[in-house]
Amino acid sequence: MSAPKEISLKKIANHVDEKRLWGRLMDLGKIGATKNDGVCRLALTDEEIKARQLLIDWAKAMGLSVYTDAISNLFFRYEGLKNDEAPVVTGSHIDSQPTGGKFDGAFGVVAGFEVIAAMQDSGFRPQAPLEIAVWLNEEGSRFSPGMMGSEAFTSRRSMEQILVVEDADGVKTEDALAQTLASFPDIKQRPLGFPIKTFIEAHIEQGPILEAHAVSVGVVTGIQGSRRYRVKVVGEDGHAGTLPTPQRKDALFAAIEMIRAMRHKFDVEDMKYTVGLFEVSPNVPSVIPSTTFFSIDLRHPDWQTLKDMGDLVMTICEQNKGPCTVTVTEIATSESLEFPSEIRECISAAADEIGIANMPILSMAGHDARQLHYHCPTGMIFSPCDGGISHNEMENCNPSDLAEVTCVLAGALAKLSG
Amino acid sequence: MSAPKEISLKKIANHVDEKRLWGRLMDLGKIGATKNDGVCRLALTDEEIKARQLLIDWAKAMGLSVYTDAISNLFFRYEGLKNDEAPVVTGSHIDSQPTGGKFDGAFGVVAGFEVIAAMQDSGFRPQAPLEIAVWLNEEGSRFSPGMMGSEAFTSRRSMEQILVVEDADGVKTEDALAQTLASFPDIKQRPLGFPIKTFIEAHIEQGPILEAHAVSVGVVTGIQGSRRYRVKVVGEDGHAGTLPTPQRKDALFAAIEMIRAMRHKFDVEDMKYTVGLFEVSPNVPSVIPSTTFFSIDLRHPDWQTLKDMGDLVMTICEQNKGPCTVTVTEIATSESLEFPSEIRECISAAADEIGIANMPILSMAGHDARQLHYHCPTGMIFSPCDGGISHNEMENCNPSDLAEVTCVLAGALAKLSG
Repeated sequence: MSAPKEISLKKIANHVDEKRLWGRLMDLGKIGATKNDGVCRLALTDEEIKARQLLIDWAKAMGLSVYTDAISNLFFRYEGLKNDEAPVVTGSHIDSQPTGGKFDGAFGVVAGFEVIAAMQDSGFRPQAPLEIAVWLNEEGSRFSPGMMGSEAFTSRRSMEQILVVEDADGVKTEDALAQTLASFPDIKQRPLGFPIKTFIEAHIEQGPILEAHAVSVGVVTGIQGSRRYRVKVVGEDGHAGTLPTPQRKDALFAAIEMIRAMRHKFDVEDMKYTVGLFEVSPNVPSVIPSTTFFSIDLRHPDWQTLKDMGDLVMTICEQNKGPCTVTVTEIATSESLEFPSEIRECISAAADEIGIANMPILSMAGHDARQLHYHCPTGMIFSPCDGGISHNEMENCNPSDLAEVTCVLAGALAKLSG
Repeated sequence: MSAPKEISLKKIANHVDEKRLWGRLMDLGKIGATKNDGVCRLALTDEEIKARQLLIDWAKAMGLSVYTDAISNLFFRYEGLKNDEAPVVTGSHIDSQPTGGKFDGAFGVVAGFEVIAAMQDSGFRPQAPLEIAVWLNEEGSRFSPGMMGSEAFTSRRSMEQILVVEDADGVKTEDALAQTLASFPDIKQRPLGFPIKTFIEAHIEQGPILEAHAVSVGVVTGIQGSRRYRVKVVGEDGHAGTLPTPQRKDALFAAIEMIRAMRHKFDVEDMKYTVGLFEVSPNVPSVIPSTTFFSIDLRHPDWQTLKDMGDLVMTICEQNKGPCTVTVTEIATSESLEFPSEIRECISAAADEIGIANMPILSMAGHDARQLHYHCPTGMIFSPCDGGISHNEMENCNPSDLAEVTCVLAGALAKLSG
């Protein structure tokens, strides 16, 4: 039915509409918009429910079928010529950081819609069906850790573990999830973990490399590993004016010594060491802190380096606890991974066929593709973003870069769907 | 009318009822009781309103008149023989730290009730009227800084400055105050700053000195000075996995360097350096902190040492800000002060007359008496507390120590009322 491949890819790419793509991104970005031009659209909130409705409206207008599952992932299906085959899937997430941008996650979802629109406009019908997936709670800002949708789908984490997670207000994932699912009673649920032929996620790079090389398409080679910890330091509260210094068990000062000692130890090339969450109790000016609780996020492209450094976290915390006690919990470990060469080659071949410059790049950030990698052949395509800035309201992209990545995504998906 | 003084003081002291005093402390401690046997009774909350009602009930049962003022201080008046004279006032506060104890503040108020009860029981009627004051928001846990009642009363801070202060939820002092005042529509308001003949505050020491000396009555010589700051560090948020370390503006790491550098600089004898409040934004695990906000509480018995060290705060913060910016604000400065010798001598003479061992002691904590000192002749009497522990749910006292302090308070107030 379809034209010879080489012609077909260019033809589809010609129907990728930069204005439509950008317009949809801006429309989605209005939902949860912050006053500083960013987005706050946390998982399972009313804002995220509104965003889901917008996607559903787009899908219905395009004649796509809509599905969900027990963890409230969304799937938008473009039927192929062979609908008994496992689908080729693209997509990303629509939740954001509290002070996030309009592109992180959103681009991968909107690009999926643009790919299908371009295929429809060009008259291209894939062999295997093509689906856009929207994975729940990639960011993990409200319910932590994130990647809940892709981890539940791929059984990398059990529903039991996920459902009991609470947000800062004590709301359980289970209850917030029920509310979201109840908002869309007409959407059919499919089982978690159904077979997928291939998964390709388009995403912004969130780093400075593509921009520095002035290349608009990054063929992602793999994802750097990460180790995540929670540290609880317990001292003893007391009066700020009366308790003599030698008798103090100051949980803040102990935590500071730990964080600083790790900072010096982890000062090796390419290591990223972040303490993003830091909480003090009772957190009043005239009381010596009795408890501190903080996160550690450690990432390095080389798994052995990351492993060796991460193994030091507990020792460094113990060595610097002073008169306090400390508990270190590693809550998530992700080894560095490499996407299959055939997927990477398929993406770069599609780019070459369409005539778009591309380069290999390692992902420094984690993505839902990390989980899908253990479920089916998986790959990713990156777009540059301004200054490499992400997880920030200033996050921005060049519309033509996004369109070029969408062309390559369309080409790769067309090839992979057979 | 009254018996010769020497006999009178002993007679009054004989009517101080340890069980009644302790019982009232325990009854007051039930309001806002925490599960760990402490008290959380923040200023201008429903809990504090309940506590006010309890005091009013006691006062009415004892035939005392009740007054309030524009800042919702409470006054319970025991008429004297010369009611046109300025009153002799005792009292303290009933608000607590979020994880506070049953004695800090509460003891000074309950001791006032016990003194009047003992006077009534012994048939003693003072010349000048005697009043119990309950000063609003000494702790400053909810609305910071504290000492609002005594500062407004003595015009050490203007009502305009106080009313705009907001709590962590954005509630203004003005609105919370209006709610508290509206809860007691029948209580007469008196002007702020009316003349006071003498103010004596009984309080727990909140330090280990009296306990170490096994002396139950401390005659307070003065209050160590304090300097309080708020520091805001502004960096830039970014993705924890992608932003290379050299490009980061991590507001948490900068704050940590500041706090640690100050800790080393302020490591001099008798210095107390506390960072009790510490807040990070956006405070999520995978975002580099863009902002930190923290408190500094610095105290030293010697004003010159405190002045010199406090003057270094801004420089040390500037020197350690790294790629971030920093703003340092000194929100409160209290010079070390010495109570008038005639008040101290009156207290120790009363103790001697009653036959209770006593010793001079410097207050390491700030108290409402600090403000009253600038309004009228002022003094303080301390009781030991277990292990010197305070601002802590484990705060505890010996009932007989509290009774002995109350006897001395009764004796001193009897002498001072003429």
